[in-house]
Amino acid sequence: MKSTVYMEEMDAFTYREKFERDVVMFVPAGALEQHGSHMAMCVDAALTKSMAGATAEALTKSTGGAVQGIVAAPINYGYRSQQRSGGGFHLTGTTSLRGTTLIALARDIVFSLIAQGARKIVLMNGHYENFQFIFEGAELALEDARANGIDDAKIQLMSYWDFVDEETIERLYPEGFTGWDLEHAGVMETSLMLLFYPDLVDLGKAAEPLYRDLPAVLPNYDVLPIIPEYTPPSGCLSSPAASSVEKGVILRDVAVRNMVDAIKREFA
Amino acid sequence: MKSTVYMEEMDAFTYREKFERDVVMFVPAGALEQHGSHMAMCVDAALTKSMAGATAEALTKSTGGAVQGIVAAPINYGYRSQQRSGGGFHLTGTTSLRGTTLIALARDIVFSLIAQGARKIVLMNGHYENFQFIFEGAELALEDARANGIDDAKIQLMSYWDFVDEETIERLYPEGFTGWDLEHAGVMETSLMLLFYPDLVDLGKAAEPLYRDLPAVLPNYDVLPIIPEYTPPSGCLSSPAASSVEKGVILRDVAVRNMVDAIKREFA
Amino acid sequence: MKSTVYMEEMDAFTYREKFERDVVMFVPAGALEQHGSHMAMCVDAALTKSMAGATAEALTKSTGGAVQGIVAAPINYGYRSQQRSGGGFHLTGTTSLRGTTLIALARDIVFSLIAQGARKIVLMNGHYENFQFIFEGAELALEDARANGIDDAKIQLMSYWDFVDEETIERLYPEGFTGWDLEHAGVMETSLMLLFYPDLVDLGKAAEPLYRDLPAVLPNYDVLPIIPEYTPPSGCLSSPAASSVEKGVILRDVAVRNMVDAIKREFA
Amino acid sequence: MKSTVYMEEMDAFTYREKFERDVVMFVPAGALEQHGSHMAMCVDAALTKSMAGATAEALTKSTGGAVQGIVAAPINYGYRSQQRSGGGFHLTGTTSLRGTTLIALARDIVFSLIAQGARKIVLMNGHYENFQFIFEGAELALEDARANGIDDAKIQLMSYWDFVDEETIERLYPEGFTGWDLEHAGVMETSLMLLFYPDLVDLGKAAEPLYRDLPAVLPNYDVLPIIPEYTPPSGCLSSPAASSVEKGVILRDVAVRNMVDAIKREFA
Amino acid sequence: MKSTVYMEEMDAFTYREKFERDVVMFVPAGALEQHGSHMAMCVDAALTKSMAGATAEALTKSTGGAVQGIVAAPINYGYRSQQRSGGGFHLTGTTSLRGTTLIALARDIVFSLIAQGARKIVLMNGHYENFQFIFEGAELALEDARANGIDDAKIQLMSYWDFVDEETIERLYPEGFTGWDLEHAGVMETSLMLLFYPDLVDLGKAAEPLYRDLPAVLPNYDVLPIIPEYTPPSGCLSSPAASSVEKGVILRDVAVRNMVDAIKREFA
Amino acid sequence: MKSTVYMEEMDAFTYREKFERDVVMFVPAGALEQHGSHMAMCVDAALTKSMAGATAEALTKSTGGAVQGIVAAPINYGYRSQQRSGGGFHLTGTTSLRGTTLIALARDIVFSLIAQGARKIVLMNGHYENFQFIFEGAELALEDARANGIDDAKIQLMSYWDFVDEETIERLYPEGFTGWDLEHAGVMETSLMLLFYPDLVDLGKAAEPLYRDLPAVLPNYDVLPIIPEYTPPSGCLSSPAASSVEKGVILRDVAVRNMVDAIKREFA
Repeated sequence: MKSTVYMEEMDAFTYREKFERDVVMFVPAGALEQHGSHMAMCVDAALTKSMAGATAEALTKSTGGAVQGIVAAPINYGYRSQQRSGGGFHLTGTTSLRGTTLIALARDIVFSLIAQGARKIVLMNGHYENFQFIFEGAELALEDARANGIDDAKIQLMSYWDFVDEETIERLYPEGFTGWDLEHAGVMETSLMLLFYPDLVDLGKAAEPLYRDLPAVLPNYDVLPIIPEYTPPSGCLSSPAASSVEKGVILRDVAVRNMVDAIKREFA
Repeated sequence: MKSTVYMEEMDAFTYREKFERDVVMFVPAGALEQHGSHMAMCVDAALTKSMAGATAEALTKSTGGAVQGIVAAPINYGYRSQQRSGGGFHLTGTTSLRGTTLIALARDIVFSLIAQGARKIVLMNGHYENFQFIFEGAELALEDARANGIDDAKIQLMSYWDFVDEETIERLYPEGFTGWDLEHAGVMETSLMLLFYPDLVDLGKAAEPLYRDLPAVLPNYDVLPIIPEYTPPSGCLSSPAASSVEKGVILRDVAVRNMVDAIKREFA
Repeated sequence: MKSTVYMEEMDAFTYREKFERDVVMFVPAGALEQHGSHMAMCVDAALTKSMAGATAEALTKSTGGAVQGIVAAPINYGYRSQQRSGGGFHLTGTTSLRGTTLIALARDIVFSLIAQGARKIVLMNGHYENFQFIFEGAELALEDARANGIDDAKIQLMSYWDFVDEETIERLYPEGFTGWDLEHAGVMETSLMLLFYPDLVDLGKAAEPLYRDLPAVLPNYDVLPIIPEYTPPSGCLSSPAASSVEKGVILRDVAVRNMVDAIKREFA
Repeated sequence: MKSTVYMEEMDAFTYREKFERDVVMFVPAGALEQHGSHMAMCVDAALTKSMAGATAEALTKSTGGAVQGIVAAPINYGYRSQQRSGGGFHLTGTTSLRGTTLIALARDIVFSLIAQGARKIVLMNGHYENFQFIFEGAELALEDARANGIDDAKIQLMSYWDFVDEETIERLYPEGFTGWDLEHAGVMETSLMLLFYPDLVDLGKAAEPLYRDLPAVLPNYDVLPIIPEYTPPSGCLSSPAASSVEKGVILRDVAVRNMVDAIKREFA
Repeated sequence: MKSTVYMEEMDAFTYREKFERDVVMFVPAGALEQHGSHMAMCVDAALTKSMAGATAEALTKSTGGAVQGIVAAPINYGYRSQQRSGGGFHLTGTTSLRGTTLIALARDIVFSLIAQGARKIVLMNGHYENFQFIFEGAELALEDARANGIDDAKIQLMSYWDFVDEETIERLYPEGFTGWDLEHAGVMETSLMLLFYPDLVDLGKAAEPLYRDLPAVLPNYDVLPIIPEYTPPSGCLSSPAASSVEKGVILRDVAVRNMVDAIKREFA
Repeated sequence: MKSTVYMEEMDAFTYREKFERDVVMFVPAGALEQHGSHMAMCVDAALTKSMAGATAEALTKSTGGAVQGIVAAPINYGYRSQQRSGGGFHLTGTTSLRGTTLIALARDIVFSLIAQGARKIVLMNGHYENFQFIFEGAELALEDARANGIDDAKIQLMSYWDFVDEETIERLYPEGFTGWDLEHAGVMETSLMLLFYPDLVDLGKAAEPLYRDLPAVLPNYDVLPIIPEYTPPSGCLSSPAASSVEKGVILRDVAVRNMVDAIKREFA
C-alpha cells in the first residue's frame, strides 16, 4: 500500500506507527447536496476531504515529518441546506441530517479519535450550514474526554474558505465578492472541483436560461416551510462562469498555506 | 460528466431525471475499522459501496433501464466494533459511533431520500455490528414518513454476504466455513478488496507471527471493558491467506446476482 | 422471608449483607412477545429470569457461598421482534420498545447497580433482537461509571442458548438444527417452559393447520414495513412438537453448567 | 392454560380474541426499591400489578365480560426514589431509572399497545415518584398515535392509593394520616403485601431500634446530593406496625371498587 | 447601574466580585400559562422571580452581606399544565414544554452556573407541574459536574408555597384550604400578584358567571387527551375573590422567612 | 390591565380575543451573557424582546389592528457564547445552553403556539450563536405540526440587526463597520440599551485600560477548549464609546420599519 495521509486508505499498523510521532488528525465535514447542473453532488464532502488532504500533506512536509497529518473519513452528509447559503433542503438531491444527528456524529467521531490517543484535532468544515452543529459536537466530545479523565485534547475548527485572504479575493473576484454564503456552487467551489475532480464538473452546463439572475438576491431572513421560488432555478447562488483550474490552484495554495500556519500556531 | 450509479458523482438534474423512471436507492452502511496489517481501514465502507454499485448497475441493466439503481453516499463510520465480529472497539484505528448516533444517521438519510420522492430503498450493510441499529433507523424513518403523510415507502435491509449461497461457500472454503462473524478481514473481504481496490491490500503483510492462531477462538459471550488479550494480535479473526482476485469475482457475481433477484422480488 | 437469589423477593437489608461478600449481579433481558398459540407471551422474560436464577444458585453453590449470585428484576419488554427471529413486531400481542429506549433502560439499570456497589454484572439475554441494544447500554453504563470515578466495574453479556453445546444440540435436534434465530417458540423455548412454567404451555394447541410449514423459510433480508405473509400463521418459526420436560432439564443443566464456568472464568 | 387477566400469562391467540370485544388495557408502573427490612424490594411493582389485576377482574365481571380487562407486564423499575416519598435513590437496593428513560419506556409500551388496537388504556401508578414521567410518556404516545393516523385512543392515569376514600382513611388510620408520600413501606403497602404476597413480608423485622422515630419528619424541600441522615435508618417513612391482612382486604376492596367506577366513567 | 440581586440586571464584573464572597444562586422555574381572566399569563414565572428576589435580598441582609444571594434569569416556560393543578395544557395561552426539554433546560442552566463557580444553588419552583422535571435536571447537572471533576456542588429544590406554614394557611383560608394544587389562580397567587404586579391583576374580572363552581371538583385521575369539560370555564381552580395585598404581604413575609431559614440550614 | 403586545402581561381571555383576528406571534430568542462592565447581562434577551415589541406594535398599527402582533415570553438563555462573536462561554456570567437543549426549547415553544392556533410566527433572534439551533427547532416544530395534521403554519426567522440597512450602517459607523459578529457589546447593542434600558448601562465604565485594543482581532477559526487570552479583557469585541440614545432611535426605527415590511411580505 502506498504512503497516504488518508486514514481510510491506511492500514491500522501504519496508522499506529504515526502515533509514535506527533499527529494532527483532520476530520472533514461536508454534505451531499445539489450544486446545480454543472457539478456533482459530492462537492462539499469531496472538496473538504481534498483540502484537508492537501493541508495534512503540507503540514507533514513543512515539519519534515515530525508532525504527521492524517485525514479521517469525511462526514459526507451535512446539516439541512439553507436557502440563503445552499439553495434549501427542499431540493431533490440534497440529502440532509437533522441538527441533533450532526452534533452526535461529530461528537462520536472526535471522541473516538481522542480515545485512540489523538490530542490535536482539526475539524475542517466545507458546508456552510454545518458549523454550529459540529462546534457543539466538538465541545461534547471534550466533555466525554474529561469524563474519561482526558483533559489535554484540543480541537481547532475552521471553514477552509475563511483562509482565502482579502488580497486573493480581490484578485479572483475583480467585479466584487458577494460573501461565502452565496458562493454555493460559484467560482470558488467550481474552480476547486476543476482542480481536484475535473470529471465531476461540466462548465458547459452552466449556461442560460437555467443559470440566470445570478448572484441570487435572497431575503435577509429565512422562511419555513421553504418558499421554492426564492431559490434560482439552477440551485446555484452565484455564477460559476468565471471558474478555472488556475483559480483552483490559487485558492488551494493560499488556503492551504494559511491553514498550515494557523494549525502550527495552535499545535506547535 | 460520465454516466454513473453513484449519487455523489451525479449532478442534481441528472438525478432528478432518473426519478421520472422507477428508482431503487441503495444506502451502503460501512465502518472505519482496523482490518489487520494487510488491508486499509475503509474495507467495510468501500466494499459495501462497491457491492451496492455493482448491484445497482446489474439491476438497471437487467431491467433495460426501466429501473434505475442509484447508490447514495455511504455511511462511512459504523457501530462499535465488537470483539467477536470485528476485534473490538478498543483497537487504535477503529473509529466508532454510539448506537443512538447510528440509528439517527440511518433514520435521517433514509427519511431525507423518502422526502425527495424515493419509495424503494435498499439499506445494504457491510459491517456486522451495524445491522440492528440501521434496522431501527429504517423503522423510525418510516414513522417520519407516515407523520408526513407518506405511507408507500418500502425498505429492504440486507448484508451482502448473506447472498453468497451455500454452494459457493463450500467451493470457496473447502476446509470449512466458520461463519460471517469471524470473516472479519478474512478470505471474503480480502478477495473482494483484491478485486475492487487492489492498491489497498498487501497480502504479503498477512504472515506469521502476526497472523498466527487463526481463525480466532473467541468466547461465546462479550465482556466490557474489552479484554484485549482475546483479540488476535493482527486484529483479523480468520486468515486471509487463501484470498484471490478470482474468489473476489465469484463472490461479487454470486452475491450481486442473488441480491438483484431479491430486490426484484420486493420491488418489481 | 425465605432465602432467594431474586432481588425482587429480597429485603434491602438482606441484599446489603450479601455485598459484604463477593456478589455477581444478573440482569435478565427478555420481551413480551407472541409465542404462538401454545405458550404464554412472557416466554423471553420468564425463561431468562429462571435461567439466570438457576445460574445464580449454581454459582453460589459451587463457591460454597463465597460468591453470591443475585438476579435483578427482568427487563420484561424487549426490542421490536424481527420477522426472521421472532415473527415480526406487527403481530398483535408483541409489545416492543424502540432501540433507544432499550439502550437507556439497560444503561440505567446497570449503572444504578454499579452505583450501589456492584462490580461484577452478568447481562443475560433471552430475546434474540435485544443483544446489540443492551450491549450499547452496558458500554454507556461504564461511561457513566467512569464519569463518576468508578473504573473497576466489569460486565459480561451472554445469550443463554449460546451455552448449549454442539453435542447437546446434536442430541436434541437429531433431524438437524436450523439455528437459534429460528428457535422462536420451538423446541428449546417450549421444553424450558415445560420445565419452568408448565401451566403456561399447552402443547396440544401446537397442531396443524395452524402449525404448518415449519420450520419457516424466511428471506435472507428484512423488509419494512413488515410483509405479514412471510410469517407462518402460528407466529412460531420452528415446530415445538418434539418438546419435552426432559429436554428442558438437559437444556437447563448444560447451559447453566457452561454459564457458571464462563462466569467464573471472568469473575473468579 | 388457565383463564387470566395477565397478558404475560396469556397466549397471543387468546389475547387477540379478547380484542373482538371491548378491551381495557392496564399498564402497572412500579419500581425496584428498598422497603425497609420487613418487605421485599418488589413492593411497588408487585402491588401495582396485583391491584391492576384485581381491578381488571372486577371490571370484566361487572360488565358480564362485555369489557375485557387485560394487565400488561409491569414497568418494574421506576424513577429515582426521592427522600420525601421513598427514602432516596442513594440507598443500596433501590435501583432507579433516569427521567428520560421512564418517559421513553411508558411512551413505547403505550404506543405499542395502541398500534396493536388498544384504544382504552389505564396507566396505573404504584411508585409515587413516577407520575409526572409516565404522564409525559402517555402524552408522547398519543403524539405517536396521531402521527400514525390514530386519534381515538384514550389514556386514564391513576395512582391506586388515590382511590382509598376519606372514610376508609379515617377508619384505617385512627391516629391520623400523614399523607400518601410518607406511606412508603407503611400501613397501606404492608397490609396489601400481607394480603397479596405474605411470603414477602416479615412484620417481626419491623421493630426498634431500626424502626424508630416514625413517621419520619422530613424537610419541606429536597437536597441533592441526598443527605443520608435525613432518611430514617430503616428506610421506611412511617411505621408498618399496625398493618394487617384485614386492612389489606379493606384497602383492596375500596380502591378496586372506586377504580372500576372511575374506569367505567371514562370508558363506558 | 443600581445594586440588585437580579443577575439579568447585573454587569459581569459586579457579578464576579460577588463570587469573592459566599454566593447562593437562585434559579426560578415558572411557566407561561393561563390564569383566568383576572391575571396575566406570566404569573408563575413572575412570582417565582419576585419570591426568589425577596429571599435573596433577605438572605443577603440577614448575613450582613457575607452571603450574596443572586437570582438568575427565570425559566419562563414550564411543563405541560395538568388539569388537576393548572387547568390543562389544551387551553389557549398556556404554552408548554415537553418533559425532556424542561429536564435539559434545568440541567444546562444549573451546570453552567456550577461551571462558573457556583456551589450553592436554590432551584425555586413556582409551577406545580415542574417539580419532578427540574429535580431530574438538577441531578443530571450534578452528574455533569462530577464528570468534570467537581464534587462539592449542592442544590436545594423547593416550591415557595411549601414554606407557608400551617398557622398562616389557617389564618388566610378561614373557610378551609383545598391544597396547593387547586390554588392555581386562587387566593395565594392573586394576593402575591396584587403585591408584586398590581398592574397585571384585575380582580373585577373574577366574577360570575365565568368564575362559578369554585373550587373546582376534579377527578382523582388524569385523562389524555384532556377532557375540556372538566376544567372550570375561567381556567381557575379556586376562587381569587378573597385575595388582597395584605394577604400578599403575609404570604411573602412568611414564605421568605422560612425559606431563608431553610437555606441557611443547608448552606451555612 | 392595560393594553399590551406582550403575552406575558396579557390575560388569557384577551389573548384569545386577538385570535379572532389575524395574529402574528413573535418569539424573541436571546441569552444571558456577559456584555462587558458597562452593560447588564440580559442584553440579548431584553433587546430582542423590546425590538419584537416595537415591531409587533408597528405591525398592528400599520394594519389598523387587522393584524395583531403578540410577543411571547423570550427565550432568555441562549447557545454557548463563541469567542468570535460573544467572547466565549468560558466567561463567568455567561450562562449557556447545549445545542440540543436550545433546539428542543425553540421546537416546543413554536409547536405549542401552533397547537393553540398560531399560523404566522416570527422567530426573532438577538444572540448571534443561536440562529442555527432555533432554525432547526422551527423545522422540527413544523414536523410536529404535520404529524398533528396541521400543514398551514409558517415561520419567519430573522436576526434584528440584519434589518439595519447599508445606508444606516455607513451613517452610524463612519469609521468603518467590522461586522455584526464583532458588534458584541458594541455601538449597536449599547445604543439600543441606552434607548430601551438606560438604567442597565453605564458608559462611564467603558474606559481604558479595560476597554483597550478594540475592535478585537480574533483568529479566523475556533479553538476548544477556549483560549481565554484571545478574548479582550472587557469581554467586548468592539468599542461602545460612540454609542448614544440617538443612534439607538435610528437603529430601532430603521430595523423595525424594515422588519414590518418583511413580515408583511410573508404574512400579508
